[in-house]
Amino acid sequence: MKVAKFGGSSVASVEQLEKVYQIIAADSARRFIIVSAPGKRYSHDIKITDLLINYAECCLTKQSVTEVQQAILNRYLDICKPAGLENTFGQIKQAVLNLVDLPTDNEQLVYDTFKASGEDNNAHLVAAYLTSKGIPSEYLSPKEAGIVLEHSPHGAMINMGGKELSPDILAKQVTYVIPGFFGFSEDGQLCTFSRGGSDISGSLVAANIKADLYENFTDVDAIYCANPNLIPDCPTLKELTFKEMRELSYSGFGVLHDEALIPTFYANIPVVIKNTNNPSSPGTMILPDSHATEKRVVGIAADSGFTNIYLSKYLMNREFGFGHSVLNILTEFDLQYDHMPSGIDDISLIMRQDQLTPDIEKRLIERFKTVLHVDEIKVTHHLSMIALVGEGMKQNIGVASRATHALSINQVNIEMLNQGSSEVSIFFGVNEADEDRAVKALYEEFFVM
Amino acid sequence: MKVAKFGGSSVASVEQLEKVYQIIAADSARRFIIVSAPGKRYSHDIKITDLLINYAECCLTKQSVTEVQQAILNRYLDICKPAGLENTFGQIKQAVLNLVDLPTDNEQLVYDTFKASGEDNNAHLVAAYLTSKGIPSEYLSPKEAGIVLEHSPHGAMINMGGKELSPDILAKQVTYVIPGFFGFSEDGQLCTFSRGGSDISGSLVAANIKADLYENFTDVDAIYCANPNLIPDCPTLKELTFKEMRELSYSGFGVLHDEALIPTFYANIPVVIKNTNNPSSPGTMILPDSHATEKRVVGIAADSGFTNIYLSKYLMNREFGFGHSVLNILTEFDLQYDHMPSGIDDISLIMRQDQLTPDIEKRLIERFKTVLHVDEIKVTHHLSMIALVGEGMKQNIGVASRATHALSINQVNIEMLNQGSSEVSIFFGVNEADEDRAVKALYEEFFVM
Repeated sequence: MKVAKFGGSSVASVEQLEKVYQIIAADSARRFIIVSAPGKRYSHDIKITDLLINYAECCLTKQSVTEVQQAILNRYLDICKPAGLENTFGQIKQAVLNLVDLPTDNEQLVYDTFKASGEDNNAHLVAAYLTSKGIPSEYLSPKEAGIVLEHSPHGAMINMGGKELSPDILAKQVTYVIPGFFGFSEDGQLCTFSRGGSDISGSLVAANIKADLYENFTDVDAIYCANPNLIPDCPTLKELTFKEMRELSYSGFGVLHDEALIPTFYANIPVVIKNTNNPSSPGTMILPDSHATEKRVVGIAADSGFTNIYLSKYLMNREFGFGHSVLNILTEFDLQYDHMPSGIDDISLIMRQDQLTPDIEKRLIERFKTVLHVDEIKVTHHLSMIALVGEGMKQNIGVASRATHALSINQVNIEMLNQGSSEVSIFFGVNEADEDRAVKALYEEFFVM
Repeated sequence: MKVAKFGGSSVASVEQLEKVYQIIAADSARRFIIVSAPGKRYSHDIKITDLLINYAECCLTKQSVTEVQQAILNRYLDICKPAGLENTFGQIKQAVLNLVDLPTDNEQLVYDTFKASGEDNNAHLVAAYLTSKGIPSEYLSPKEAGIVLEHSPHGAMINMGGKELSPDILAKQVTYVIPGFFGFSEDGQLCTFSRGGSDISGSLVAANIKADLYENFTDVDAIYCANPNLIPDCPTLKELTFKEMRELSYSGFGVLHDEALIPTFYANIPVVIKNTNNPSSPGTMILPDSHATEKRVVGIAADSGFTNIYLSKYLMNREFGFGHSVLNILTEFDLQYDHMPSGIDDISLIMRQDQLTPDIEKRLIERFKTVLHVDEIKVTHHLSMIALVGEGMKQNIGVASRATHALSINQVNIEMLNQGSSEVSIFFGVNEADEDRAVKALYEEFFVM
């Protein structure tokens, strides 16, 4: 069995739904479909989710809701009418209008419920649509699909003890359409993920039914090996491992939610990124590490906005627990570091610049001075981190040599180099001004024959 | 003014003292002389310090002391007699014999006092010797030389608030001979350094008198740029900076006590390592960083016996304070790490293997698993760390490239690479079996034209 998730743009119009139908019809293993709420049809279009947020606001502030209700209903009508789904539209209309009757004492719950209705109504719609096209389909609630979540202020948390589906559901010869983006906690509370969370819903269902494959249909053909805005005709990746995908997370690879891969990662289920608008393209397969067939450098990720705080103290390495004391102070300041390379008498903290206001930075430096009695502190802003990623790096003599050579002949000074923590990546710290040149140099070295 | 320290082998015999005299006579700026106790004259000789430890043992255990007293006195007599210093010998003899009258209730103090007498008597001897040769010289006690120490069970600690010398002492036109290795705390308690601590005494005196140079006379011509046992005709270093010296401390550069450089480092006083037996050789100059004149790779240090503990956890980098939690556990186990490189979802701890018994390692791994819920732990033993060191690395595009290329063509797999923490070094982790090949490869690349 396969789980297929269709994002907002894939279900934004009846034309898009036709493509979804074709995709599902082409493979009878696609029996669990997760849908987002209808997204944008063109660049200035408004997503249903955003309309619903506006709708909730109007309700909470006792403003008129007529206009926004109409805008929402029009989006559904634009799909239902040409598809001949008048009955379904009637049900959706009632559901949308009923939202005004929700108690408004729990503001967060109001927003969550309004937003979740976008996916919920759309799952009903898509099920009806597929049925009308000859694929017997039924709406399946997140609860029936075994999704159990935990509430958290920053978006629902995955409860890893996901549930198996009932044998009756599994046995029934229908295609199930499940709303993404939300679910319920054990005690019945509605929980929503942060934006893009339908990816997580699909991943959870894939794990729950022990799917053979989780297909994530989006609007790009595949994942690029580098930033396509920087590299003309940048090649896409046929496959990469979960580990590689994570190491590439620094940039340009934001196709999937980080959390979205957790359930499939732990359930050892491959994930494929495909394009609803070009389903014949093979897409990018994300494989459990052990399934990787190609051992090579797969990608280059880069991100700017890093700061390096360099601490030096004579005989530092004779001082027990110096690094620990450094991290105690970071924790005290609620700061997170990305890398902490150390020499004999020095240690560097490479961290996201946006955490450090000038005031925080000043107080942090002061604290390092007074608590750690360091001899020297140097702060370097505007660094970029570049990750060269690939299982091919493992035990591969010469990757570091080729990479540093490529940077060197392109006049890129390496401020930091970190290899060996991860077996599938090398990190380079360079000046932001050198970032693009560095990425191009590495691309030329490893991807151009 | 210069401070000159002469180690045990430099003052082991009257022939050696003649060399010391020649050195001091050659430069009138050498006015503060620090001496160790007479050391070995040949490889199976016994140092006076070891005889004194034996003497203390005999006293504490009420055994006969006659034999060991005689052995000690013979060493001094062997110097005093040919030098015609009968009076001095008489005083030393009395001092050595008087040691038996010390109260024995504080065992540590007994050992310290016996050992310190080796340097103390020798300072008297050398002062008398120099005077007899025509250089007016006087014994100067550690206290008069401004040495103030703090007692600690692992050897005396430097009290950084060293004292200036009295104007009377500074004004007197004599050469001062100061015993190394010991001093007194503010409240008058005798404190001794760990072995080799005369280097520290000299450094403290240099800082106290704001010397222009601290000359450390030993029995090697200079510091080698790599392990001379591995590299035939290995070149020596004309100069290096304090920072470089520290980064090289991994191995083969144990000429000076680590602590010995602290006072001169903070006082910005250059240090030179010279050979008593070949004083015309320029030796190796250790300069404050700012004084460095040559920007190049200066040396290669290597040491074996490292272990890498690799921890991997999906979405680790989204978990606040993960690295901190890792170090909390290390501290709990009283373990120290050398490097902690990190990727996106993994972190490696590179540490000295000798800290980890199989039992400690097992319990540590267990703790990482239960507290941090890591997905994977891998332990790799038998790693060597190699440091490529030099101020020349700073802002020098291409050093990493040349180094990795050299390792690569010599079939050395780089398990870890860490550049950028220190501005003057790059660290490589390799398998112990590859260590020698790696050092040779780097030597060929950076030191052979």
